[in-house]
Amino acid sequence: MEVKVLRLDHRRVRDARITTHVCLTARALGASGVFLSGDHDKKLMENVQDVVKRWGGNFQVEYRKNWGNLLEEWKNKGGEIVHLTMYGEQVQDVTPQIRSSPRDKLVVVGGSRVPSKVYQEADWNVSVTTQPHSEVSSLAIFLHMLYEGKELNMEFEDGNMKVIPSANGKNVVMN
Amino acid sequence: MEVKVLRLDHRRVRDARITTHVCLTARALGASGVFLSGDHDKKLMENVQDVVKRWGGNFQVEYRKNWGNLLEEWKNKGGEIVHLTMYGEQVQDVTPQIRSSPRDKLVVVGGSRVPSKVYQEADWNVSVTTQPHSEVSSLAIFLHMLYEGKELNMEFEDGNMKVIPSANGKNVVMN
Repeated sequence: MEVKVLRLDHRRVRDARITTHVCLTARALGASGVFLSGDHDKKLMENVQDVVKRWGGNFQVEYRKNWGNLLEEWKNKGGEIVHLTMYGEQVQDVTPQIRSSPRDKLVVVGGSRVPSKVYQEADWNVSVTTQPHSEVSSLAIFLHMLYEGKELNMEFEDGNMKVIPSANGKNVVMN
Repeated sequence: MEVKVLRLDHRRVRDARITTHVCLTARALGASGVFLSGDHDKKLMENVQDVVKRWGGNFQVEYRKNWGNLLEEWKNKGGEIVHLTMYGEQVQDVTPQIRSSPRDKLVVVGGSRVPSKVYQEADWNVSVTTQPHSEVSSLAIFLHMLYEGKELNMEFEDGNMKVIPSANGKNVVMN
């Protein structure tokens, strides 16, 4: 099952850091790419690609102005859509069902106001707690539960840098 | 076991949204408060307190200019310190040990450059993946693993608003 993330309604100035964290969280926790919608923020995309180059693995960042077309395309290719929203069904209730379907998943994380079309097109609207917090933490918890923690042992190939876990300091290997 | 979060080196303009997401993630996933260090950002603290008022539960936000004193105080009161850093021991390896100690935990999340004193004072330096991503997602995954998912079923008492999970729309109850 391939997992990609769609970030809706990115605003260049206001969202630069949050959207960067969404992209890096997607990558670190096992998604294979992010689609950005909203502002076409080339700088942000370059920053993420730079992390991929230095730290390894395969991860694509792609701009899609028209996210409606993307949802349609994704479904036409047999994929399914998971929309993370605080109003959805609880992640602990629906993740086993989502995991049991082998189809590719597009995980949609919103901006401030998500159009109702997204709720309608989604195969699952999923809430991580029903409290307000962060699209970054919702994405992290969802991916972690989807992969049942196995994503924490993932290896990133062909990077220039690698951290060796350490109890007390920093141990970074450069290739 | 009480869990609080210390956010180091907050910068008012650059970090406002990320630090807000750190606070709301801490609250939504079961911590009982956040200490902020760095800039004294009253607006941010009010925003978080406003969420607590509307959505319920107990959660304190407190400014501490001198985080070094806080670490010392925390230890003197018998508490332990968990520092989240991409250089630490892996979360999947050390969380069972952290959970098995009933002492209160202070979870430290860094700014861009964390002083070596924090690495030294921490009882555990913990990495969530050894990849660069986000203090928001690291905190989310750590709390989720510490609480073994039970935090997702937590109730927040005495709020004005409550979401009833829904497959297709928004269902918010106002008290």
